[in-house]
Amino acid sequence: MSIIVLGTIGLDTVKTPVNLKKDILGGSAVHFSMAAKIFTKVNLVSCIGSDFPRKYKIFLKNKGIDLRSVSVIKGENFRWTGEYTKDFNCAITKKTVIGVLGSFKPDITNDQRKIKNIFLANVDPKLQLSLLKKFTSPRLVACDSMNYWIENSKKDLLRVLKKVQIFFCNDQEARQLSGEYNIIKASKILLRMGPKIVLIKKGEHGVLLNAGSFMVSLPAFPIDNIVDATGAGDTFAGGFMGALTLEKDISRLAIFNAIIKGTVIASFNVEGFGLEETSKLNKIMILKRMNKYKRLFVL
Amino acid sequence: MSIIVLGTIGLDTVKTPVNLKKDILGGSAVHFSMAAKIFTKVNLVSCIGSDFPRKYKIFLKNKGIDLRSVSVIKGENFRWTGEYTKDFNCAITKKTVIGVLGSFKPDITNDQRKIKNIFLANVDPKLQLSLLKKFTSPRLVACDSMNYWIENSKKDLLRVLKKVQIFFCNDQEARQLSGEYNIIKASKILLRMGPKIVLIKKGEHGVLLNAGSFMVSLPAFPIDNIVDATGAGDTFAGGFMGALTLEKDISRLAIFNAIIKGTVIASFNVEGFGLEETSKLNKIMILKRMNKYKRLFVL
Repeated sequence: MSIIVLGTIGLDTVKTPVNLKKDILGGSAVHFSMAAKIFTKVNLVSCIGSDFPRKYKIFLKNKGIDLRSVSVIKGENFRWTGEYTKDFNCAITKKTVIGVLGSFKPDITNDQRKIKNIFLANVDPKLQLSLLKKFTSPRLVACDSMNYWIENSKKDLLRVLKKVQIFFCNDQEARQLSGEYNIIKASKILLRMGPKIVLIKKGEHGVLLNAGSFMVSLPAFPIDNIVDATGAGDTFAGGFMGALTLEKDISRLAIFNAIIKGTVIASFNVEGFGLEETSKLNKIMILKRMNKYKRLFVL
Repeated sequence: MSIIVLGTIGLDTVKTPVNLKKDILGGSAVHFSMAAKIFTKVNLVSCIGSDFPRKYKIFLKNKGIDLRSVSVIKGENFRWTGEYTKDFNCAITKKTVIGVLGSFKPDITNDQRKIKNIFLANVDPKLQLSLLKKFTSPRLVACDSMNYWIENSKKDLLRVLKKVQIFFCNDQEARQLSGEYNIIKASKILLRMGPKIVLIKKGEHGVLLNAGSFMVSLPAFPIDNIVDATGAGDTFAGGFMGALTLEKDISRLAIFNAIIKGTVIASFNVEGFGLEETSKLNKIMILKRMNKYKRLFVL
């Protein structure tokens, strides 16, 4: 079993009250891959610019991530600059350079067309749709999105939602896309747009999942020293989807365990800059924290 | 076993986008009592003005709440006016009339001095301290507070915190009093101020409890039709404390079950105005919803 992810490979500049990290490796597909690879073989579909550091490419290769469908395009790499203030758990975007992502047409190899587990991270829904068409036998398809596409490409996004089983979004996006403030009502409206499961990421407040016939609500793992929350949502998705890839059925139990794994891996992500912590993870570290995590809500 | 609560008996005016309720029965001690009485005998310490409707006094009496320590003071009753907009789960306070609460000196009967379980709802910490002195053998003491006392009576509030086992607050108050934004760090700082347990109420995101040697984090019960959230925190506290009153030890298991009961009862509170829903509750209704609630986070 393997999984394929479409998303960005970025160079992130992150400012916090005590630190500044320039051009560190990031992007939705990278954070997703670093978590999913703990459970399964990961194929990455993205593009990089001619200025993308060779060391990062080697780093990803050494992590066992299949980069055959990462195209190198002449031009500047996708870059994101964000700042964390003392009081906020989420970054304020200071600058985004789209770069080569603007002319990217995702494609995959012939053998990758047969991959059954697909995650479409937050990119233009047109790209998500064009890639999705190439698979011959999708089993589990999930996507993420963001406010920009809800505002500017709603029609395409709704088309994507009709083709996915799981829709990942945060609480603000759920409210914006559904037009409903109450998050439970919002999740019900989103279910009517196509997906079988709506998974709302609430950051420090955990996750709310609505599968129609049942709901799951689990807290975040409490972290008292948040260093850099960039990529936490994609890390969660990577852990969640990676774990589900190994399951025969997308049952309530499988979903439950996948949320727990995703949550725990995401909690490591926020403890370091970029991939500092998640790239060092092994199954024993995850298992240990899973046991600690369960003590929060298990009688 | 019985419990005693110090707090307000209020006349609330609540405005929502579709409704306006004038001078309905409310107040911290009333909401607390309505939940706690499901489990234990409740004694209420408060004051009412000469304009307090007789029907409300009869209503409380008929609910079995001991009103001997509710003093009637000449003057206007405590009144609160709040408005819920379409987009917010918590009310904007439009007007507060302190009335007779301003000259209130809480006192209790001789037999009430022996009550072992005490809840000091959000009132002037000076009143909390003066009442607390009167008990001869307190076993379980908990208190609540609010931003006003943190800003204006911090010294007295800190004195109260040295004398309680459980401190109830919401996330904003935890941040304000601790001077720390991260809620986990904040709870640790608050523990050092005296209480053995810090219980942070996060509204629609549930509850985070830090007992030093363990933490509990549980979601709210998902409600898609919130009518009026007034008193939800005090209702939670009433259910939680009422349930703990019946327990020999304040163990992790006892705390867990008490949070579940408090959460479920609070979820009924928000489904109606004032006491509409909580005053009709019985144990079977609570048990049914408890089972539904547990399905959110139990594997």
